[in-house]
Amino acid sequence: MTNDNERIDDLQRNGYRIIQNKDCFCFGMDAVLLSSFAKAQKNEQVLDLGTGNGVIPILMQAKNPDAAGFTGLEIQAVSADLARRSVELNEIGEAVKIVQGDIKEASTIFGGASFNVVTTNPPYMNENHGLTNPHSAKAIARHELLCTLEDVVREASRCLKMCGRFYMVHRPQRLVEIFEVMTRHHLEPKRIRMVYPHENKDANMVLIEAVKGGKALLKVEPPLVVYKEDGTYTQELLKMY
Amino acid sequence: MTNDNERIDDLQRNGYRIIQNKDCFCFGMDAVLLSSFAKAQKNEQVLDLGTGNGVIPILMQAKNPDAAGFTGLEIQAVSADLARRSVELNEIGEAVKIVQGDIKEASTIFGGASFNVVTTNPPYMNENHGLTNPHSAKAIARHELLCTLEDVVREASRCLKMCGRFYMVHRPQRLVEIFEVMTRHHLEPKRIRMVYPHENKDANMVLIEAVKGGKALLKVEPPLVVYKEDGTYTQELLKMY
Repeated sequence: MTNDNERIDDLQRNGYRIIQNKDCFCFGMDAVLLSSFAKAQKNEQVLDLGTGNGVIPILMQAKNPDAAGFTGLEIQAVSADLARRSVELNEIGEAVKIVQGDIKEASTIFGGASFNVVTTNPPYMNENHGLTNPHSAKAIARHELLCTLEDVVREASRCLKMCGRFYMVHRPQRLVEIFEVMTRHHLEPKRIRMVYPHENKDANMVLIEAVKGGKALLKVEPPLVVYKEDGTYTQELLKMY
Repeated sequence: MTNDNERIDDLQRNGYRIIQNKDCFCFGMDAVLLSSFAKAQKNEQVLDLGTGNGVIPILMQAKNPDAAGFTGLEIQAVSADLARRSVELNEIGEAVKIVQGDIKEASTIFGGASFNVVTTNPPYMNENHGLTNPHSAKAIARHELLCTLEDVVREASRCLKMCGRFYMVHRPQRLVEIFEVMTRHHLEPKRIRMVYPHENKDANMVLIEAVKGGKALLKVEPPLVVYKEDGTYTQELLKMY
């Protein structure tokens, strides 16, 4: 089931497991938090843009079993293969499909207005100079080398039906730009949650729900604090894992 | 010193006191939090747009005694008179000036690029229909009847020198619009702080620092929680009061 440099991790949910490759980008807390923040209702079709090893659709399928189906789009062959094998390992091939392809062409691949929900944990960094290996799988997952924030948001909007929901995790540093790009593509931010590593530290992640064609009115949900003073996880974090 | 319907409150800072009128808008936690969040350095000139009874410049003068001076602009004669008498009461007439006038004409009244810092606790509500008394002092302080968010931001930007700082407290519900209006007027949001009434409640205020001509990069500071579980103020809140 696994190749060299790979390991199988327990997802602590439904008995699901995931294959990770140390040379690729292993999933982080970002993906786990997004898969709890995002919701899929009964019969909804969900697309994950830049799915990596498939952690978001696999976790979301466990948490939202009534959804019609999950599709993960991933440009890197090695990651898409990992994701497909994890889907097989969990025997959820009926519910989760992995497609190898480019985010920039998502609406061409799947057709416009074809999903109720789009999720994404995109590359955060737009400073790409000075990268020692811009072709590495990790660099591609972390930096805007193969797609920009604008590409992701534009394709999400095109793939969504009217009133469909877009869920993204990103860095608060770019929140002004994120709001601007979203509204320009008719995705109205409706709900955000700031993630603070400690209660007295700056936020280092933001979870965002935007609605296609939504009316302007933002809800800022309670602070999500990751660690207690003693360095252990807070109750809420433990519940999400 | 006081008229009917007026009372004198202790500001718990430098022995300063403030005259409030129950028929006008009495200052709230918003103003206190903004006057701690905002900073004025040595020799800086500070303008407060829509100063009401002058609580923001009076508190800021106490906290930033090295600043060159504070000016409060207020359109309502009754409020401007209250503010002037509070300045007299505290004997800080050298440092704090109150001017009666319209926010929409601030840059004409004071001249462009004439301040290092602009502060404001503007009307939050843009839904003005159904107001029983749209001419009341309270309605004017709370609703966008005499000025809009756009008027406040545009005049702030015009009054600020390049690299000057704009500090505003507002409702998180309007954060998307606030960012859009600010950036359109060359005020780049650089630092925000969400204010949560309780640690498990949605944010009900946001404190924002924007820099005229600043580079895009937002810092989201630690959550500011107002009340502890037992209903008493948190340590940080007590420190600000």
